[in-house]
Amino acid sequence: MTSPRDHLIDWLRDAHALEEQAKSLLQAQIDRLEQYPEALPRLQQHLQETEQQRSMIESCLQDLGADPSTLKDWTTKFMANMQGFGHMMASDEILKHALASHAFERFEAACYHSLIKAAEVAQEPRVAHMARDILAQEEAMADWVWENIPTLTEKFLHRSAANQDAKI
Amino acid sequence: MTSPRDHLIDWLRDAHALEEQAKSLLQAQIDRLEQYPEALPRLQQHLQETEQQRSMIESCLQDLGADPSTLKDWTTKFMANMQGFGHMMASDEILKHALASHAFERFEAACYHSLIKAAEVAQEPRVAHMARDILAQEEAMADWVWENIPTLTEKFLHRSAANQDAKI
Repeated sequence: MTSPRDHLIDWLRDAHALEEQAKSLLQAQIDRLEQYPEALPRLQQHLQETEQQRSMIESCLQDLGADPSTLKDWTTKFMANMQGFGHMMASDEILKHALASHAFERFEAACYHSLIKAAEVAQEPRVAHMARDILAQEEAMADWVWENIPTLTEKFLHRSAANQDAKI
Repeated sequence: MTSPRDHLIDWLRDAHALEEQAKSLLQAQIDRLEQYPEALPRLQQHLQETEQQRSMIESCLQDLGADPSTLKDWTTKFMANMQGFGHMMASDEILKHALASHAFERFEAACYHSLIKAAEVAQEPRVAHMARDILAQEEAMADWVWENIPTLTEKFLHRSAANQDAKI
């Protein structure tokens, strides 16, 4: 038997590990961008949001008497996989990153969507409130990536057809 | 210099590999389900859709004078990773699967979203039409998983708190 509160703490630890990895992923994307600088402001904004999210989760874990130190294996694996995607080998790295980023933001959103319900069941309204705020940020980022996929695809194809650097 | 048409063929091969892996993933989920049979009809429906999608992509590749035989590394890796997630080790496997499935369907949707634009640039309206049809199916599946996450979370927590099998 595991109480909803114990599961909630577990899943907050998952979320914390996920935000750690999100930070590395975003930083790597920012560092590698060359021909697509128009994406930088939004990526940098989401990097800041991600740092704030991590602090918010830490503070929730402290309130619940837990600490965020135990990284959860499955999220770490998931992210290592998303990053280790072989993107850097791909001549269309920028596009592969965009597709994976959309999926990753939706993965994060789904985690918070589940956390909201878990917090309600465990009667922890503060956690539910935080998860709702973070969910909105993840969805906004996923939507932004989505909306930019056609333009990015077109720019990539035109640069590639004109024999210009298009990869990153 | 790579033409939009060559990229389009490449990305259709990616999509073909992705649908192959989607099929394995869905079949594994269907085979492992125990306590959550209410999910079966929708999973089975999407398995059928996935098989049709793969055939549609094969037929597009044939029309373009290409064949789908070359599996693309990055999609295969991505999927292997999604599957190798460590879910089976997790006591909350059913939930981890649901979160990953939502992200996976959104990943597929993003691939077709990009393919639509690539097909337009390469002036291949039949491919664009097919990609629009498949995109709608992937989005519908992603939405269905999303809508079911709260109920699934609640059912999992109640079963777990009552010391009933809750894992799958």
